[in-house]
Amino acid sequence: MTPIITAFERSPDGGKGLARDTRVRWAFEEVGQPYEVRPVSFQAMKEPAHLALHPFGQIPTFEEGDLVLFETGSIVLHIAQRHEGLLPDNGNARARAITWIFAAINTVEPPILELANAILLEGDKPWSKERLPLVKQRVRDRLGPLSDRLGDAEWLDDAFSAGDLMMVSVLLRLKRSGIVDEYPNLSAYVARGEARPAYQRAYAAQAAPFR
Amino acid sequence: MTPIITAFERSPDGGKGLARDTRVRWAFEEVGQPYEVRPVSFQAMKEPAHLALHPFGQIPTFEEGDLVLFETGSIVLHIAQRHEGLLPDNGNARARAITWIFAAINTVEPPILELANAILLEGDKPWSKERLPLVKQRVRDRLGPLSDRLGDAEWLDDAFSAGDLMMVSVLLRLKRSGIVDEYPNLSAYVARGEARPAYQRAYAAQAAPFR
Repeated sequence: MTPIITAFERSPDGGKGLARDTRVRWAFEEVGQPYEVRPVSFQAMKEPAHLALHPFGQIPTFEEGDLVLFETGSIVLHIAQRHEGLLPDNGNARARAITWIFAAINTVEPPILELANAILLEGDKPWSKERLPLVKQRVRDRLGPLSDRLGDAEWLDDAFSAGDLMMVSVLLRLKRSGIVDEYPNLSAYVARGEARPAYQRAYAAQAAPFR
Repeated sequence: MTPIITAFERSPDGGKGLARDTRVRWAFEEVGQPYEVRPVSFQAMKEPAHLALHPFGQIPTFEEGDLVLFETGSIVLHIAQRHEGLLPDNGNARARAITWIFAAINTVEPPILELANAILLEGDKPWSKERLPLVKQRVRDRLGPLSDRLGDAEWLDDAFSAGDLMMVSVLLRLKRSGIVDEYPNLSAYVARGEARPAYQRAYAAQAAPFR
């Protein structure tokens, strides 16, 4: 039974891969599992049929038989726990890799979302110009320690894991801001993620309907 | 081997239970596992010994023999996966409960953190008064759908789970704002969480050093 995920029918970023279905597609590609995609319109996302799958009216969702999941982190973890390729076998190493999933979405991503809000939702406000540097500093307050921890390692904890998949995906949201480039090791880390064949396939698949 | 967690040596909220070690203590209490606490000063949190445990220099951390974890979500999930009481046995129900952990910290908490930043870090800024209603609206944009999904159920997905533990903990951060009270079913849900004996024990334990 092939799992079905949802994705935007029309891409807010024109297929640049920032929508969260890309993270789930990347996970499927890393573990070599097929998946199907059901596009959802912005209007349909707020209607009862989709809200039954995703209470917050967003994408992606994950359906496999009777099981319905939402939340990208949860879907990626679910895929990683059920198929080889995204989590180490050793219990302790596995718990550490899962920790990096949480670090990506709960420690590093929140100030990045705040920066996105500052630009997209408050770019026309009178305080925008003065406030933006404060918000960017909050992003740097996370990237600095992340850069220190990564050092010259290839991935965050030994082999590539679902934690790296999520951290690279979160950092990719900053591409246009140029902030990641202030940390050459993070910039190289993101480039290593993007260069993975599984990421390339996921990126191409999400972009295809919009090209 | 009793696990050791870290907590603030001096409480930023005067022991009101909002520091994230409370969430981990609550998890230990729900599954009936003992734990030890090592208090850390604000200065020590930024020093190499603590940064080796937590790259972002925060609390809580979790140490059990060779295993070191950080990120509250990851620690709570780790405890829930290894002991009975916080996750259903059925695989699908388990995956859904884990989804609610992610929903709490990745969908509901980010606008709450943004509201906390708006008050704590930007309360003295010239834009504060005009901007605050926008930020509060972003919180309501999450609480509305959450309230709709909960309806008149006791917990988010059948029995109490680690997902409820995390969601109640996230909503408790809004207590002073009064926003949760706009949704009577969420307010009652939070009260049910607080009334659990395990929460009561966790709350008392975190408050004890500061009373």
